[in-house]
Amino acid sequence: MERTLAIDTVKKVGQEVRLLGWVHTKRDHGKIVFVDLRDRSGIVQVVGGQDLVGLRPEDVVELTGNVIKRPDNLINPKIPTGEVELKASRVQVLSKSSDLPFPIETDGLEIEEALRLKYRYLDLRRERMQRNIRVRSKVVRRMREFLMERDFVEIETPILSKATPEGARDFLVPSRLQKGKFYALPQSPQQYKQLLMVAGMERYFQIARCFRDEDARADRAYGEFTQLDMEMSFVTQDEILSLVEELFLEITESVLNKKVFKKPFPRFTYGRALEQFGDDKFDLREEKDPDVLAFAWVVDFPLFEQTSGRNVAPMHHPFTAPREEDISLLDTDIFQVRSLQHDLICNGFEVGGGSVRITDPELQAKIFEILGHTRAEVERKFGHLLRAFQYGVPPHGGIAPGIDRFLMAAFGEPSVREVMAFPTSTSGQTAVMDAPSEVEEDQLKVLGIQVGKK
Amino acid sequence: MERTLAIDTVKKVGQEVRLLGWVHTKRDHGKIVFVDLRDRSGIVQVVGGQDLVGLRPEDVVELTGNVIKRPDNLINPKIPTGEVELKASRVQVLSKSSDLPFPIETDGLEIEEALRLKYRYLDLRRERMQRNIRVRSKVVRRMREFLMERDFVEIETPILSKATPEGARDFLVPSRLQKGKFYALPQSPQQYKQLLMVAGMERYFQIARCFRDEDARADRAYGEFTQLDMEMSFVTQDEILSLVEELFLEITESVLNKKVFKKPFPRFTYGRALEQFGDDKFDLREEKDPDVLAFAWVVDFPLFEQTSGRNVAPMHHPFTAPREEDISLLDTDIFQVRSLQHDLICNGFEVGGGSVRITDPELQAKIFEILGHTRAEVERKFGHLLRAFQYGVPPHGGIAPGIDRFLMAAFGEPSVREVMAFPTSTSGQTAVMDAPSEVEEDQLKVLGIQVGKK
Repeated sequence: MERTLAIDTVKKVGQEVRLLGWVHTKRDHGKIVFVDLRDRSGIVQVVGGQDLVGLRPEDVVELTGNVIKRPDNLINPKIPTGEVELKASRVQVLSKSSDLPFPIETDGLEIEEALRLKYRYLDLRRERMQRNIRVRSKVVRRMREFLMERDFVEIETPILSKATPEGARDFLVPSRLQKGKFYALPQSPQQYKQLLMVAGMERYFQIARCFRDEDARADRAYGEFTQLDMEMSFVTQDEILSLVEELFLEITESVLNKKVFKKPFPRFTYGRALEQFGDDKFDLREEKDPDVLAFAWVVDFPLFEQTSGRNVAPMHHPFTAPREEDISLLDTDIFQVRSLQHDLICNGFEVGGGSVRITDPELQAKIFEILGHTRAEVERKFGHLLRAFQYGVPPHGGIAPGIDRFLMAAFGEPSVREVMAFPTSTSGQTAVMDAPSEVEEDQLKVLGIQVGKK
Repeated sequence: MERTLAIDTVKKVGQEVRLLGWVHTKRDHGKIVFVDLRDRSGIVQVVGGQDLVGLRPEDVVELTGNVIKRPDNLINPKIPTGEVELKASRVQVLSKSSDLPFPIETDGLEIEEALRLKYRYLDLRRERMQRNIRVRSKVVRRMREFLMERDFVEIETPILSKATPEGARDFLVPSRLQKGKFYALPQSPQQYKQLLMVAGMERYFQIARCFRDEDARADRAYGEFTQLDMEMSFVTQDEILSLVEELFLEITESVLNKKVFKKPFPRFTYGRALEQFGDDKFDLREEKDPDVLAFAWVVDFPLFEQTSGRNVAPMHHPFTAPREEDISLLDTDIFQVRSLQHDLICNGFEVGGGSVRITDPELQAKIFEILGHTRAEVERKFGHLLRAFQYGVPPHGGIAPGIDRFLMAAFGEPSVREVMAFPTSTSGQTAVMDAPSEVEEDQLKVLGIQVGKK
């Protein structure tokens, strides 16, 4: 007999069905026993006798029986299957469950996080986590469709790559074939996406995994995160912002079923944002209504910032274009130069940043000079990109909204880890698995490296 | 003025348009100059005078002018825009191009691969590579839609993970926060996807990046590859095979516009495949018609194989379930035990493998015993998974078709590198970028490792 999902029992009153799932709860009233069966579609009540007595919460079971209408006074209006129940005629246990290390009916936030991550496969059974992971899949699906309907191509870029100059610490991977050398995991596909513009792809995106060996924060998981990486050729900053705004409107209203605080998204210059909010990240909502997402754009960032270690650093990255009308200031007052950087803000978080890029080799050389890079340094770090720009580079720009961070903001979750299936802990411990872990001496020998000091 | 794509000029005869793209070719006939302009949509002819003389192939240009019908005798029936041309009135060069290191009008296979990879951003401009990368995006899009329409959830699993016992060599990543310890990059999300079944996700997939430090072959890129990783709960092997067969039929016929050699896909037992073809990978086509994809299933693999180093090894992996009716043979003749492994074959390549998994703890313990694992070894390698199975595990199984390898087979390409945007070379050198590369002593110090011997 074909399997029936819990949710579909309402359409099968009077029919015999086969249900498969987990025992969510059991209530033993002596001669009559009630079980809530849970599967991916939801919950349905099962009623029976002695057969059900031996069942324990979280056992995996196969139940056969007739779907019947509940008497009017026993209807549960709180669940979609509240008008029916299964009268079990056959009960088969497929897998027994031990007592769980924590309850899963709650939202889980009251439980110590280390314990939740150790048993993440149980933690993910709770309704809240199921929703977060399933809605995440829907959000990303809609992002992809939105972009592909507009002629974007999804292209995978390498994970085993070269150190990128994004500022954060790289994860390194020792090479076996070239001993003593290392790959780096990409902090973002920034240079690859610019190379794809040189390659004539024109409209690229990727749901890209990015890696930074930086300490965790509530809005940044340790180790890896995911971003919607995008780049377009032959576009203005306005065109990038309009497209991304349309995308996030659609996600918010059609997938998340939430309200957008203000349309079109208000635009703030960096200067005005600092003046008004004292920060370039801010929450426009006066009351924190969780069903409202307050987006805003921040533009006109300074191109450079003064830093302690080095005199001048790029505010975004060294490929960010200055505003056309400010280029002359590069010779007179560099800290007055505004850039074509744009940040997307949502409910107080920076959920995406990007820019129009420099594609003029002379302008790029000038920027590197201001940043104090030597010729050799430029060649070593950016040589391949500058070389690529000698073969016909289209004007281009992009943005990279963070998927984890946007969902955290959109769901009002206290941490990005609540929207990831298997996040690492703040100390870099992976969920469930015992990693990082020690490896055998032989493995290190093959790689030509050793642990510890000389 | 809004941009018009090359392909859309045919709809704008008599109108003034603005084109953006690359100079594909130039033919200088003295007073009159012809340029083929290329953008992501294709090519259109541009005709003009002195303004066009200075253009060189691969310059990026902005051209404004009127679209006119070509005289009948000058129509080019070989391209979709062959009936029109642009009479250029304004020519602006956005970026100049140097001479390319190789031609891009050819299919590229005649050029040394190292050179192609060094200048991959130019190599990708050739029509064949544009097609491979763009069709790849369409294939993966259709895979996703097919599965999501059937209630699958796409879930990302970690890249920074623990060594997996898949047999190949792991890439290691030294941990900064726990010095002397290492993450491993996943050879596949095998254990995570099984944990997601324990988590009640029921139908999972992911376009997953996998990592193996194994020497490259034509059908295997060095370092990383991409697979459609899938797992389902409460399914039989037949149900897995039917679903995957339907998916690949749709991809082949509706996205690739190719023919399927035989429907339904023929099924061979491992024994019959060896007998008939001398191999468990085989090509059913008698003549190698590139527009025909010959799929087949191979099933009934032996559960174990005899190996030299160790006496007994799993043919697939230690979680593969034996066929129900062969379980008694585990006590008498283990090499006669057939498994619920399934391999998908296409035009001579294994494009996917999977199995129904063991979910019975006693059976799993028995398999480990036969494989000669000690209790401690089992705990260290698989402890988390076995522990997870104590909390109600649904019967489950899956498969993982390789995206690169399937596309290589489907396109009839000589190597998987022809369907990847930025593959590594066979010696592990990344495309374009200079990696692996040496890193600074400080970076190693922070990680607590050093290069070379004590």
